[in-house]
Order: sequence, then C-alpha cells, then structure tokens
Amino acid sequence: MSIETLFANRTENIKPSAIRTIFALLKRPGIISFAGGWPDPALFPVDELRDVTDHVLATDSANALQYGGTGGDDRLLRFLRERLNRVYGMAVNADQIMITSGSQQGIFLTDTLLLDPGDAIVVEAPTFVGAFGGMQTFEADIVEVEMDANGLDTEALERVLQERKVKVVYTIPEFQNPSGRTMSLARRRRLVELAEQYDFVILEDAPYSDLRYEGVPMPPIYTLDTNGRTFYLGSFSKTLAPQRVGWIVAPAKVIRKMTFLKMAMDVCTPTLTQAIFAEFCERGLLDTHIETLKAAYGKKRKTMLGALDRFMPAGVEWTNPQGGMFVWVTLPKEMDAEKIFHAALEENVAFVIGSAFYADSENAPKNVFRLNFVTPSEEKIVEGLQRLGKVIHEYAN
Amino acid sequence: MSIETLFANRTENIKPSAIRTIFALLKRPGIISFAGGWPDPALFPVDELRDVTDHVLATDSANALQYGGTGGDDRLLRFLRERLNRVYGMAVNADQIMITSGSQQGIFLTDTLLLDPGDAIVVEAPTFVGAFGGMQTFEADIVEVEMDANGLDTEALERVLQERKVKVVYTIPEFQNPSGRTMSLARRRRLVELAEQYDFVILEDAPYSDLRYEGVPMPPIYTLDTNGRTFYLGSFSKTLAPQRVGWIVAPAKVIRKMTFLKMAMDVCTPTLTQAIFAEFCERGLLDTHIETLKAAYGKKRKTMLGALDRFMPAGVEWTNPQGGMFVWVTLPKEMDAEKIFHAALEENVAFVIGSAFYADSENAPKNVFRLNFVTPSEEKIVEGLQRLGKVIHEYAN
Repeated sequence: MSIETLFANRTENIKPSAIRTIFALLKRPGIISFAGGWPDPALFPVDELRDVTDHVLATDSANALQYGGTGGDDRLLRFLRERLNRVYGMAVNADQIMITSGSQQGIFLTDTLLLDPGDAIVVEAPTFVGAFGGMQTFEADIVEVEMDANGLDTEALERVLQERKVKVVYTIPEFQNPSGRTMSLARRRRLVELAEQYDFVILEDAPYSDLRYEGVPMPPIYTLDTNGRTFYLGSFSKTLAPQRVGWIVAPAKVIRKMTFLKMAMDVCTPTLTQAIFAEFCERGLLDTHIETLKAAYGKKRKTMLGALDRFMPAGVEWTNPQGGMFVWVTLPKEMDAEKIFHAALEENVAFVIGSAFYADSENAPKNVFRLNFVTPSEEKIVEGLQRLGKVIHEYAN
Repeated sequence: MSIETLFANRTENIKPSAIRTIFALLKRPGIISFAGGWPDPALFPVDELRDVTDHVLATDSANALQYGGTGGDDRLLRFLRERLNRVYGMAVNADQIMITSGSQQGIFLTDTLLLDPGDAIVVEAPTFVGAFGGMQTFEADIVEVEMDANGLDTEALERVLQERKVKVVYTIPEFQNPSGRTMSLARRRRLVELAEQYDFVILEDAPYSDLRYEGVPMPPIYTLDTNGRTFYLGSFSKTLAPQRVGWIVAPAKVIRKMTFLKMAMDVCTPTLTQAIFAEFCERGLLDTHIETLKAAYGKKRKTMLGALDRFMPAGVEWTNPQGGMFVWVTLPKEMDAEKIFHAALEENVAFVIGSAFYADSENAPKNVFRLNFVTPSEEKIVEGLQRLGKVIHEYAN
C-alpha cells in the first residue's frame, strides 16, 4: 500500500511554498540576501532579553514554565490593549483579543473559522506568500485583485464583488509584503463600505505598522469599521523577535470560537515566551526598541533606495515604501526575474522572484522581484545592489 | 448582520472542551486539584533552565531569536533521533521526524493530513479530551472502542472494522490518559496486523512513556509496525516543561506533507524554546531529570493508591497505573460523578468528571472520574482524598 492513498482531498491543494527554498539559501556562506522577511539579528535586544528572561525564570517559573490559558497571558493582553489604544486609537475589550502563535496562526485561525470549500477569499496581487497555505488547506477559491500605488484597487474589488460572493478580503494595508505599498485612507473607507454592502470579513494583517520611517500614520481599517467585520492581526516578529507571539483583535463571538479552535491546534502559545515578552513590554522596553529599529531600518531604506538609483539600469522601476521591510522592483517587460535570480546567485546575491507572491504564479508577471532592506548591513546593501545592477545590465544588453 | 452567518460549516462541530473549565478551577486559592494534566511545578528544573537559557541567549541569539526552519532545530532533532533509538529501539531517519508545537499539534497535523468530512477515526473510550477538537474541525466521525485492563479491546475494534472503513486509530498505549491503563504486547501486535489488513493509520500518542514507575518497558507500536502505518507522537511537556515542544515520527512522505501544513499553521515552533531544550538535552540533563521525576511521581502514585485504599468506601474501584499521571476511578453504578464533583468542590477538592473523556459524553458512563496524582504534594494527596472519601461516603449512604 502507499500511504498517500489515505491523504485527505485537501492535501492536493498544498504545494511547497517558495519561502522554503529561501530559508535554505539564507544559510549559504557569504551570501548577501535580500530574500526572506527576517529582522536584522544584529539588532535583537539581547542584553535586555537576557535580563528579562532570567528575572522571569527566577521569580515566576511555576507559571512561566506551566501550561497556560488558550487566550493568552493576562499581563501581555493588558499591555497590548493599552498600547493598541494609545498608539492606534483602537478600543479593545478583554473579550475581543487573544494571543496567537505568530500572526501566521491568526491567518490560519481565520481560514479555519470562515472558509468552506469553494468559498472565495480575495487577496492583493501580489501578497504575503505564507497566507496561501491556510486558504489551500480549507479548499478556498483564492481570488486576486490588483493593486496600485494606493494599495488594493477597490474599484477592481467591486467588479469582483458584483460577480460573485466573497467571504473574506485579506489585506496588508501598511508597507505591504511584498510591494511596500500603503493603502490610502480613501481606499480604507471604501473597503469598509464594500464589506458592509457585500457582507464580507476584512482580515487586516498589520505586522509592519509600527515600522514607519516617514509620512503620516494611518488609522487601522479596524478603527474605521463600526460594523465589527474587521479582524486585526498584530505580531512581535518584526518589532522584538520572531518567536511566534502575535495577537488577533476581532468581535467577542469570533474570539470565543477561535479560542476553541486554537486549543485543538496547540493548546496555548508557550507561556515562557509570552512571560518574557510581557515583562519586556511592562518595563517600557518595546517602544524604546521600536525607536531604535526605526532609526536603523529607516537609514537602510534610504541606502537601498539610493543604491537602486545608482546601480539600476534605465527602465527598472521600484516602489517607495514609507516603512516596513520591502521594496518591489519591476524590470522592463521583456526581462525574466527568474533568469536574473539565477545569475545573481552566481554572484552570491539573493532575492525573491515576484511570481512567488501570486496565488496563480504561472500567470503572474515574470518581470518583478522583492528586496528586503532590513536584514543586510548598509555596506552589504550597497555591495549587493552593485552586483545585482551589473547582472541586470548584462541581461538588458 | 450577525458575524456567525459567515462561519464555516465545520464550526458547528466545535464545542468548548471540559478542560477549559478545569483551567479556571485550578486557579482557585487553596484548592486541592486532582484535575488538569499538569506536571508538578515544584519539580521544574529551574536552576538548570536559567543557566541553559542564559547560555543560549549569550552565545547564539542571532539564531535562537530568529525565524527557524519549519521542520525544527537540527540539534534537537539529532538528540531526539539518538534518544528514541537508545531508549525505545526506534530507528528514525532524518526525514522521518519533525518538531511540533506540542504533541497537540501532532494530533492536529494528522487530522489535517488524513481526515475528509465523514471519515471514521477510532478513539479509545475514554480518551484524551484534547484530541477531539481537531477531529471535529475536520468533520470526522469519531468512533469509540472500549478498553479493558489490557488497553484498547482489539476484538471490539475488529467488529467495527468489519462494518465500516476506518482511516485512523488514535491510541495512547502507555499509562493512558485518562485511564492509566497500558496496552499489552499481544494487543499491540494485533493492532498492527489489523492496520495492515484494514488499511488504516495508527496514531500512537506517547507523552507519558518515559514516566514508568514499575513493570517492564514495552516496545512502542511504531517498532512493531514494519509497514509504515504508525505515526508516533512525543512531547517534552511531561518530562521537562509544557512549552509546546513535541515531535512526530512518521514515513518521510508524511513528514514532507506535514511540513507544508505546519508552515501554514505557525511557520515554526519557537526557535528560542527549541534552542533551550536542545542545550538542556545535549548537557545530559534530560535523562537525569526524568529520573528525578520518576522517583518523585512514583512516590506520589504510591501515596495516592494507599490513600484510595484507606479512604474510599467499599464498591469504589480504580486502575493501577504503572506510570504516567492518572488514576481512573469507578464509583458504584448508581452514583453520579457529577454530583460528587460539585460536593467535592464545596470541600475545595477538584477532579475531572469521567464523561468529559468520551466523544459521546451524553451516553458515557456517569460513575467515573479521573485523578491526577503528580500535581499536588503527597500531603495534599492524602488530605484531598480524605475529604473526597468523606464526600463519597455521604453520597453512598
């Protein structure tokens, strides 16, 4: 017998994600990697975390090493509610928030809660590649809607909505992964109107919102929606460390049901990492650390945009992110990013080919790719883009 | 509108687990709790973990705080493969094992991989209550098969198999939760034969196997199965600390597919907890700590069995676990464990009502309950059982 004959039907949808190949590449010695979505490890607040962690283990091991409630650590939840209110004007009751094992789990929980086979879920084209797995697991129909410089094109979305029932619209409104674009206020308001008119849930994924380097802060879609149709995902992965601690804010009925689902998935997010993060936050270290990151990443962003200007041949375009981690590069139409990728690898430079960020990657544009400007040092950014520029020049001729 | 109208069909199956109520009870001040499945927090190896954790953060923060591969920490996997071979005679290739966020996630991954709506999955009656959530999520048909002192009744199982197609048999062969029973070697062999004959997967959940206080070690079902139909789940939750680090051993094709599924669920198990556990294990501290636990828990087991002998009225029976954490108590037929539960709570003593451990709890026996003998101190065990004995005496008269 072959064990695959026992696999559930849903497994036919599950394909290896492009991110897997990226992880392997990042380990190659000497590589300058603009791939991955990793924070700069040189900026992890190691000394503070050593002190905080030892304090937690010395003073509260009976709780910090034991099982915990599925909804999350009470201190951490209290801090998050206070901060969401202070920074983003979000009024969040205690029964409207829970801790998730990274915002990845928040996406998966939303998929589990809402998606029946064949249900339509709209994603931005391009979008976060890790979002596809849960949608595929629950056999949803992934519908791509185009973006422009103002984010998700709500007119294009409305044309889809007029044609078919959509259950969820998944969006990363701020410094989107992979495009770096931010959704305008007018589009946010329009999206909320459409959600009410066409009865769908907005899944607002906001892992980068704290990392704004210029421009004016924007209100989360959650705060514009008075009808309780928006689920908001946050994460410590980009602001402290990717230790799988995130949160979801949603109507109480949703949180209640998701708590049962999460219990079946992993019982709870580890109490130790939650206790460490709670103590770190309560000491006031999070906001200080975010300022450090903003200063460093803001400089790297400038360095990358400057190096793109300097080294890219005419005809290459790129986005101008106000925050986050990514720049999206568009090559002249006739150029193939996959060929550039392989040639760049020969020069020990890596990025992610743009088609990976499309649900329908076969019919996706072939001339786009994503650059991460926060993981490498400024020196490596310049060196890597010089090499990359040379590779593209050679292909252009 | 009401947001529930958008919930997926599967959510109708998801009910709050009895364990939720237990968590709340355990926090009641002064309560003597035989409920929950928690290790004794007084035995956490806190000093060792402080030293190990600080070492990890001081020497390897760039890896221990960063994203990691979905399959798990290489050092931890290497240790586990070596230990599974040394202690259990399990030959495990590198592509046959992955880290899970607790063995809870191992169950959920198996459900995700295998269960189509309506598929039959067999569970022992009674069984681990946390196993139902994933089966309900994937709309499986949960079929209960009775147990006796030798574990799962394979004759009763065969009668089910003759009547209907079964995809998975879920079993906890050692010191079963909640019954404390261990499956005999003859039953294990028979189960493997049946799996081959009737083409199903055996999901072997082994979180307690390292905690044997008397009797002869038994071979894991995994080692008896030469056909690659057994998935084996292990966990650090009972032997080190419940920080959501477990593992699954299964055929390479299964691990490969589960890795994609896990990526969609939480990207990876936190790298920090994995690095801490890897360092703890590599220092040789795990086996030493397991010996400490076995000595302490073995004494508690004796204390509980002695106290049951002393305080329970005639007509009350209980199992005699050779290891693990639980004793299963059967009251005389006419007695109602739920009434005893509420009366015991008045005396500040808690346990879990037995019907919670049945998929069909409405038609479950009403005269059974579970006692955990590892969480309370020996003194509290005696005091708690004295109070409980008094309550049962009063009801018996």
